[in-house]
Amino acid sequence: MNEHNPFALENTLSLLLEGKKYASLRDVLSTMNPSDIAAVFEKLPEDSLPLLFRLLPKGLAAETFVEMQPDNQELLIRGFSDSELRDVLDELYVDDAVDIVEEMPANVVQRILSAAAPDMRKDINNLLNYPENSAGSIMTTEYVSLRTSMTVGDAITHIRRTGVDKETIYTCYVTSERTLVGTVSVKTLLLARDDTEKIVDVMEPNVISVTTQTDKEEVAQMLSKYHFLALPVVDTETRIVGIITFDDAMSVMEEEATEDIEIMGGMTPSDKTYLRSSPFDLFKHRIPWLLLLMVSATFTGMILNIFEEKLTAVLVIFIPMLMDTGGNSGSQSSVTIIRALSLGEIEFRDILRVVWKEVRTAVLCGIVVAVACFGKVMLIDHLIMNNPGVTPLVGLVVCATMVVTICVAKLIGCTLPMIAKKLGFDPAVMASPFITTIVDAVSLLVYFGIATFVLHL
Amino acid sequence: MNEHNPFALENTLSLLLEGKKYASLRDVLSTMNPSDIAAVFEKLPEDSLPLLFRLLPKGLAAETFVEMQPDNQELLIRGFSDSELRDVLDELYVDDAVDIVEEMPANVVQRILSAAAPDMRKDINNLLNYPENSAGSIMTTEYVSLRTSMTVGDAITHIRRTGVDKETIYTCYVTSERTLVGTVSVKTLLLARDDTEKIVDVMEPNVISVTTQTDKEEVAQMLSKYHFLALPVVDTETRIVGIITFDDAMSVMEEEATEDIEIMGGMTPSDKTYLRSSPFDLFKHRIPWLLLLMVSATFTGMILNIFEEKLTAVLVIFIPMLMDTGGNSGSQSSVTIIRALSLGEIEFRDILRVVWKEVRTAVLCGIVVAVACFGKVMLIDHLIMNNPGVTPLVGLVVCATMVVTICVAKLIGCTLPMIAKKLGFDPAVMASPFITTIVDAVSLLVYFGIATFVLHL
Repeated sequence: MNEHNPFALENTLSLLLEGKKYASLRDVLSTMNPSDIAAVFEKLPEDSLPLLFRLLPKGLAAETFVEMQPDNQELLIRGFSDSELRDVLDELYVDDAVDIVEEMPANVVQRILSAAAPDMRKDINNLLNYPENSAGSIMTTEYVSLRTSMTVGDAITHIRRTGVDKETIYTCYVTSERTLVGTVSVKTLLLARDDTEKIVDVMEPNVISVTTQTDKEEVAQMLSKYHFLALPVVDTETRIVGIITFDDAMSVMEEEATEDIEIMGGMTPSDKTYLRSSPFDLFKHRIPWLLLLMVSATFTGMILNIFEEKLTAVLVIFIPMLMDTGGNSGSQSSVTIIRALSLGEIEFRDILRVVWKEVRTAVLCGIVVAVACFGKVMLIDHLIMNNPGVTPLVGLVVCATMVVTICVAKLIGCTLPMIAKKLGFDPAVMASPFITTIVDAVSLLVYFGIATFVLHL
Repeated sequence: MNEHNPFALENTLSLLLEGKKYASLRDVLSTMNPSDIAAVFEKLPEDSLPLLFRLLPKGLAAETFVEMQPDNQELLIRGFSDSELRDVLDELYVDDAVDIVEEMPANVVQRILSAAAPDMRKDINNLLNYPENSAGSIMTTEYVSLRTSMTVGDAITHIRRTGVDKETIYTCYVTSERTLVGTVSVKTLLLARDDTEKIVDVMEPNVISVTTQTDKEEVAQMLSKYHFLALPVVDTETRIVGIITFDDAMSVMEEEATEDIEIMGGMTPSDKTYLRSSPFDLFKHRIPWLLLLMVSATFTGMILNIFEEKLTAVLVIFIPMLMDTGGNSGSQSSVTIIRALSLGEIEFRDILRVVWKEVRTAVLCGIVVAVACFGKVMLIDHLIMNNPGVTPLVGLVVCATMVVTICVAKLIGCTLPMIAKKLGFDPAVMASPFITTIVDAVSLLVYFGIATFVLHL
């Protein structure tokens, strides 16, 4: 019984390797799960990888290969003989083979394609042609296909004969002249009272499907929403061309959430895990936004330049608080809206409802923050810090600015991501760092505007 | 064939309802998927809900019930007769029943428990006792259990007899005196060459399991990592007590990502979808951080108070840029680390590797941003805005502050979430808004420190 502790065996394997106990190594590895073997391989010396990999039984070797990082896969492929490469490829599902091919340099791709069986080569090439992020690019062509005229007994026999190479046998797709007309689960087949019932009578005729062009994020959400094991992918004539299974959908969900979070945090998204990213990788993903935002902060600088003679110390001490509160209010709204857009909870047509909701929320937040702020200014800045310039009138200016800033920030925060989506951009790009810059500029303008008016500067 | 467009039928259903065409309504609803029916019900008038629900065939009614929002579920339960309630409960899986019970007020819970069959009532009560977010709280007790001594043929017969009420039949759990000793998939059973083979010979003896106390986020990641349909949950004596299926794991992944994003955006997490949240709901989740951060901005105000006589206009115009760049650098690091912690890519013991990586990244980012910043200051503020106070020496002060601020921000951004996790807090709490406040204070101190030294203020 393995509790979840994939690295407990790392030292044991290392010692067995040093002691050249290959038979025992093989036995130990054979008890492990492919994901865990791949994780342990990451931790062992790179030059022992080809040897370790060759110790694995064939099926386990291929499954482990799929779970490995691209650089280790490349290292192994470069060391494989043609027949070894063919053996691994024969055991792979087409969608996994495509994932690997997409990560390899051109000369390795050539070797893979020439080693693959003709059918698989054709499938790989077909799948490579679908646009990135489309359902076509992540589907597999290995599914169980049944005909309407089969009986339940025929279907079970068919699955037993052909199922071994299919990515899932649990949902079968019923076709009539390649057009998808229904689905039937193995549960239905096994639980059918009568083996002579026709498939057409037990199948579910209302098939929910996606097209090859559907966005993979939408596919993942549909699998999650409907609790399906797999979703069929059809072409423009509703002929089934592949399926996408729940495990691929889970990877997509995880990747898309990570991507959204990275973009919201002001970075360009990265495929590599953190520990595998070099400082230069991290630098490349972070520097564009840092530069852009530094330059865009020029606006706030210009505003302060313009109001130079009004920059009394009393007003300046509240600038950080106003800017931070504005930035926080804006990112609260933008982050909420971006996530709701990602999960398909709202669409562009909801924009008026969203704006109305945010305006009311902003007024509530603005009033409460302003009242608290007035108390804070009078207590801390006026009394405790004993700053004579901080009069109740200054406090009022600060609080009035606060209310306006929060309202503007929430309005910008909710509308920009929706407009971005409508225009075909990733809404996450409109998240906090970008909105902060706009809100900063607006809050300064409002601040000096109100101050000029109220304090007669 | 349904393309993904759940609301296309909304108007049709509405018209059928007005025209009292109940037979047609029933026929149309029967062709739909439970998730889509629940979504359409949300859009139709609330008072027609009991009528519409009673039109659904029994099995579909229960599946739709599970997909509905808690307030609609409550509305229906309050209108149900005892026997109607019992009919719905009989069709539910225990984990779904528990999810519903958790959302209902006490008097409704009482009604549900008294209507449930004694076995289910016991199971519901057991599951309600597991801590929130634990594997025990999301598992179901309806799984297929096989014995080692069965043959493949016996197993298939057993599945056919008992499978109808099980949440999944595709992975079966082999027990010996209730201890979990192996798993076997229906694929293995169906593809076995010989029906008389013993289960003990075809099962996978290396079972990966979780305990009732395992965090549900970890469970979701394990299901995703191992591509499993379901994961068994065991008690302290490795006796199987339940299973968690992939669809529950997908919901957990989605919820946890949303929660992380909300917390990183400076909000307390919410269970409700955006459109179902009232402005007051949104206000409640947003105001605590706004208030906390406004008050914590007192520090920056105090620093500016202290350096009051040094607040020359020339220095002040660069404060927003320095603060924003610092805030952005810090949130880049914190967001990256928080996500890596969430996905289990890094742990506390990696802290030194993380710090070393971030320091090198920070130096790279710092130098590039500082050089660009110097150019910007000289070009825009010195030449174009023609501000005579912005000398090259002032530019140097700003750029030196920039480098230090970026390094400090990245250091704080990467260490705080890891320390938070080690101390048992949610690392996401340490995200951008909180770190921004610290970084703001540090950058101001560094700025005035360097300015005092270099410009002899």
